[in-house]
Amino acid sequence: MQNFVFQNPTRIVFGQGTIPQLRNLVPTDVPVLLLFGGGSIHQNGVYEQVSGSLAKHQIHEFGGITPNPLYETCMEALEVVRREKIEFLLSVGGGSVLDAAKFIAAAACFEDGDPWRILSDGAKVHDALPLGAVLTLPATGSEANGNSVISRKSTQEKLPFSSEKVYPVFSILDPKTTFTLPPKQVRNGVIDAFVHVVEQYATYDTQAPVQDRFAEGVLQTLVEVGKVTLKEPENYQARAAFMWSATMALHGLIGAGVAQDWSSHEIGHELTAFYGVDHAESLAVVLPGVWQAQLETKRAKLTQMGDRVFGVRGPEAAIAATEAFFASLEMPLRLGEYGIDAEDAVAKVTTRFEQRGSRLGERRDLTPSRVADILRARA
Amino acid sequence: MQNFVFQNPTRIVFGQGTIPQLRNLVPTDVPVLLLFGGGSIHQNGVYEQVSGSLAKHQIHEFGGITPNPLYETCMEALEVVRREKIEFLLSVGGGSVLDAAKFIAAAACFEDGDPWRILSDGAKVHDALPLGAVLTLPATGSEANGNSVISRKSTQEKLPFSSEKVYPVFSILDPKTTFTLPPKQVRNGVIDAFVHVVEQYATYDTQAPVQDRFAEGVLQTLVEVGKVTLKEPENYQARAAFMWSATMALHGLIGAGVAQDWSSHEIGHELTAFYGVDHAESLAVVLPGVWQAQLETKRAKLTQMGDRVFGVRGPEAAIAATEAFFASLEMPLRLGEYGIDAEDAVAKVTTRFEQRGSRLGERRDLTPSRVADILRARA
Repeated sequence: MQNFVFQNPTRIVFGQGTIPQLRNLVPTDVPVLLLFGGGSIHQNGVYEQVSGSLAKHQIHEFGGITPNPLYETCMEALEVVRREKIEFLLSVGGGSVLDAAKFIAAAACFEDGDPWRILSDGAKVHDALPLGAVLTLPATGSEANGNSVISRKSTQEKLPFSSEKVYPVFSILDPKTTFTLPPKQVRNGVIDAFVHVVEQYATYDTQAPVQDRFAEGVLQTLVEVGKVTLKEPENYQARAAFMWSATMALHGLIGAGVAQDWSSHEIGHELTAFYGVDHAESLAVVLPGVWQAQLETKRAKLTQMGDRVFGVRGPEAAIAATEAFFASLEMPLRLGEYGIDAEDAVAKVTTRFEQRGSRLGERRDLTPSRVADILRARA
Repeated sequence: MQNFVFQNPTRIVFGQGTIPQLRNLVPTDVPVLLLFGGGSIHQNGVYEQVSGSLAKHQIHEFGGITPNPLYETCMEALEVVRREKIEFLLSVGGGSVLDAAKFIAAAACFEDGDPWRILSDGAKVHDALPLGAVLTLPATGSEANGNSVISRKSTQEKLPFSSEKVYPVFSILDPKTTFTLPPKQVRNGVIDAFVHVVEQYATYDTQAPVQDRFAEGVLQTLVEVGKVTLKEPENYQARAAFMWSATMALHGLIGAGVAQDWSSHEIGHELTAFYGVDHAESLAVVLPGVWQAQLETKRAKLTQMGDRVFGVRGPEAAIAATEAFFASLEMPLRLGEYGIDAEDAVAKVTTRFEQRGSRLGERRDLTPSRVADILRARA
């Protein structure tokens, strides 16, 4: 096990009928900005539950946050924060609304120039507005971590930041709010959570058996309930298991004391930035290629995953089983299925990695030219 | 899965060479009381590491906290807290020092009569002094939860309390500090952690597959490394895996959304209070009896544990495998091995449970007369 520091202060309120607890979780003595997305919360009853719980609070609203939330949108919200002297942000929606809330929270307290520098230069977040969440889409784990990914339309960039200052103070997770999600979002969420786990697991062995078992436990659960929750959206227990799996996938525990990869995410972010494919779609295309390229260095952990999660032998079989699992959720696995030309992707993505001097993977050995090979292999 | 609230704010600093981080974790601007036990920290180098890291801090000391820490001792420490205007407690030792620190922290802010009422009446803890820990004995999980168990010599009582106010602000876990532990304490720690997990697992199925897998992962790890870490005290990786298992066993995650039992603890506390057997020793004697008594209601989970943790079939085989695991660590399993007469234990323990109106177990169906049968079966 490697040395580590682990702390996750977010208060998780999990279960059906928990949204009314907002009443006691959101401060009453300061102006609050309720952030949401495209309006689904107005159709699925969540908005009524939230606003009904906040009758005594000072609520302002800002909607229209899109998937792959935009810097440009966040800066509009920041104007509202300043104008209305907002002191608490409430995210109601999925990971995109949460990621936007985190960036707005950090930007509101940023005194070192354009807040974009938090993303582009890794400028330090010294302070942030407190934020809370009602989660309606299990996928990103953003409800219980300090991570956020923001896109900039004008430059086709998609960049992450992390800070201890932007952990949600609380997150309410009511699986029933997810019953009306479109199947594509459920599929994406299952695969997003799966890939979050393996980015912290399928690396090299650091003799961290508890972390390995926890990671495998989330993977096993996703494999067990993924198809069930897709076919039976109102099966509460399957949806609850999926929702908690997605939170645990990126809550920090699994990644404490182990090597981490994240190259599928870094490559995937570029595919989303250039071609607009969903985050999880980009991951499902890239991951098998990243694993094939690192077959030797990941051999031990892929073999262990194959054995413990899928009951198959050897690293190739583990990769094949993962692809079969994604396919069972009707997830495309190739760039061509999105009409993306592999050579076009190679040119765009590797140019960017060369500019940034990026070396990906847990051993920093995936050079831009090896990324090019990965993309060609996923044509 | 049942509804739950989960929050654990403790900052865990894990790994070799981490004690010097105390310098930045302990406040410099207030008087600090360093709490410790019988003096082993003066022999194993921990005291030097701690005091060397706190050269710029205002440190007072209070030693002599025993296993099964005493209310009487805590009240002496409380006098020091008041006299020296202590505002931060630093526990250096195992779970006993930590449990004492938590009670002292709560007692220092208690304004509702004798602090014993926190234990005897469940009087609410409205506030507590902040505390931090350097853990030198993996066992109780007290380093990352809000639980404490205190004994009162004068009345032969051993009672628990829980409060969100007494979570350690930070806990430093350096596996190397545990290399010099006597084998008996290592054996006890492995079994204590094992029983913590099963008290939150071997109940009835609540369809919480992630929690089940996490619980099984800790059990599997304890079974894998228990004997190794006992035989090879300076095997860092085995000791680290054991130490992290013990923390995860009672960190709150495994118990979120599931049914919990704790009857082995409640009965075991009485055996310790009356006969002075170590906490883990009492658990190893009682647990198999509790399981036999609840064989039907625990059938599904015991079978699952047998299958996933020990590779055996059926609840009886799971109980036998657990006993064999305890025995492989050279742990006695019967009251007689401690010279305790079963009928004497029945008389003392059941009288107390009858006075308190205790009904134990996840279904509250273990009446005092069923506890008597359990104790007789463990003669």
